[in-house]
Amino acid sequence: MSPAQGVHLIAELDGCERMPDVAGMEVLLRAAAAAGHARLLSVELHAFGGTGGIAGVALLAESHISVHTWPEYGYAAVDVFMCGPSADPEAALAVLVDGLAARRVRTERLTRRAGAGP
Amino acid sequence: MSPAQGVHLIAELDGCERMPDVAGMEVLLRAAAAAGHARLLSVELHAFGGTGGIAGVALLAESHISVHTWPEYGYAAVDVFMCGPSADPEAALAVLVDGLAARRVRTERLTRRAGAGP
Repeated sequence: MSPAQGVHLIAELDGCERMPDVAGMEVLLRAAAAAGHARLLSVELHAFGGTGGIAGVALLAESHISVHTWPEYGYAAVDVFMCGPSADPEAALAVLVDGLAARRVRTERLTRRAGAGP
Repeated sequence: MSPAQGVHLIAELDGCERMPDVAGMEVLLRAAAAAGHARLLSVELHAFGGTGGIAGVALLAESHISVHTWPEYGYAAVDVFMCGPSADPEAALAVLVDGLAARRVRTERLTRRAGAGP
């Protein structure tokens, strides 16, 4: 796989029985990056008021992992985008599915890559 | 549109004639968020050595914008994920396409949303 080719998992997590706070989500994002054999560059998190939703992104040498939660719907939108031959995006996603105790997961798997043209 | 429903544009930008440095990319990400009527929470950027690739994520109240560049291929992988009725993800993407002077753009448009189930 070329370094400019990657796998992007787009996952909708429903029926989530756990919705971590910011500290818990940082732990999860770090664990997901490690499980995916990715090199973590930084983690950025934001907690919304009200229903306790969180936005979080782990920037990776291999691309990124993002999670956006809506506790009021038991829903989280998760992306795992990883480039390079040694990355394991499925393993990273599994950490998040397990950490949020999602009952249902719909995943779309996209290949990201440069085209051949000018 | 429910607050837990969003549009996710997955875009491959090829033939990019401009590859901004970190400072230039921050300007672009801020301009893209503004064009998309999004509220910017933070911008995180990382410059790789060697060929000058950049990884950048703008965390938004409406979700996120990410960009990963491979100057050696003239390629950038861009995501614009925005929730809420007033967001304009296409306008945000247009700012990045213009800023990188991409000659070819392939875009996939996904709807992200919570399911109906348990």
